[in-house]
Amino acid sequence: MQLTILTFMERKKFNSSPCSIARSLDVLGDWWNPLILRECLYGNNRFDELQEWLGISRNILTRRLKELVENGLLEKSAYQNKPARYEYHLTEKGYDACTVLLALMQFGEHWYFNEGEHPIELRDKKTGDLVQPTIVDANTGKPITSKNLIPCPGPGFKAPQAILKRRFREYYENFS
Amino acid sequence: MQLTILTFMERKKFNSSPCSIARSLDVLGDWWNPLILRECLYGNNRFDELQEWLGISRNILTRRLKELVENGLLEKSAYQNKPARYEYHLTEKGYDACTVLLALMQFGEHWYFNEGEHPIELRDKKTGDLVQPTIVDANTGKPITSKNLIPCPGPGFKAPQAILKRRFREYYENFS
Repeated sequence: MQLTILTFMERKKFNSSPCSIARSLDVLGDWWNPLILRECLYGNNRFDELQEWLGISRNILTRRLKELVENGLLEKSAYQNKPARYEYHLTEKGYDACTVLLALMQFGEHWYFNEGEHPIELRDKKTGDLVQPTIVDANTGKPITSKNLIPCPGPGFKAPQAILKRRFREYYENFS
Repeated sequence: MQLTILTFMERKKFNSSPCSIARSLDVLGDWWNPLILRECLYGNNRFDELQEWLGISRNILTRRLKELVENGLLEKSAYQNKPARYEYHLTEKGYDACTVLLALMQFGEHWYFNEGEHPIELRDKKTGDLVQPTIVDANTGKPITSKNLIPCPGPGFKAPQAILKRRFREYYENFS
């Protein structure tokens, strides 16, 4: 059911890119990392549980968990000594990263599952009520469709004006 | 500034996984694919523009564009003949996938850039007003924090009850 292909991948590092998407992908943009966060969100925090549910090799899982801890998304703690056994809990930053999972979930539900056959539902931890994540504009409360958006350089985009004008041509042609 | 490391990657296919996150990652979960969509959202749709702004090899770009077209996120069309030159436009599905970019953008801005130094801003295409994407619960309009959510199996999660009870232990312990 799941086909494993060994490929050469050019792994580029984006941690000094002037783009918040690229920097986030440095931490999240790999198949395993978001799926590990998903299991932690499900409440499967122990190494052995993660291995079982993800069907991932112990080697790869160890490396990915180390990365996620170093990047501040997970916290490692022992739940047992002799032999030592560890569990991994989402930090505040890790929970924040899970917002990206909510967006992936919505996209995947809409395009890869039939109506009414979605595999996962989300509930409020306190009330148990169903929760339906949706992206809105914080300023107006209206739903956002990326088709209606135009990206433009913000205060942190350091590049000569000539470059900006080429890269964000649509914006400059229409709005300034 | 950008370090390229050649690594062996085990590339697993998740296209029949019973998880909308995993299926979405099959299409998006690679560094280049979301960045290609980003450039298309910026309005840089031509092969040469994509290559220039992403600093990606023509080989890899060709392969990724083919994948994105096959998966229905981009549409290819010629903008010139003799020699033939192509551009790639977001489809409805592609725009929908960009919602994931909005979530990545928010996460990255908060954790990897100082306040007021965010590199990109989003504006409404018609009005030019700034837009601030935020995730809320469609049922209540209240902002969602993943810390307060508990995932539980939906109608499409096919697994024996004993498996569900182990995998979603927190949910079953608290809500049924």
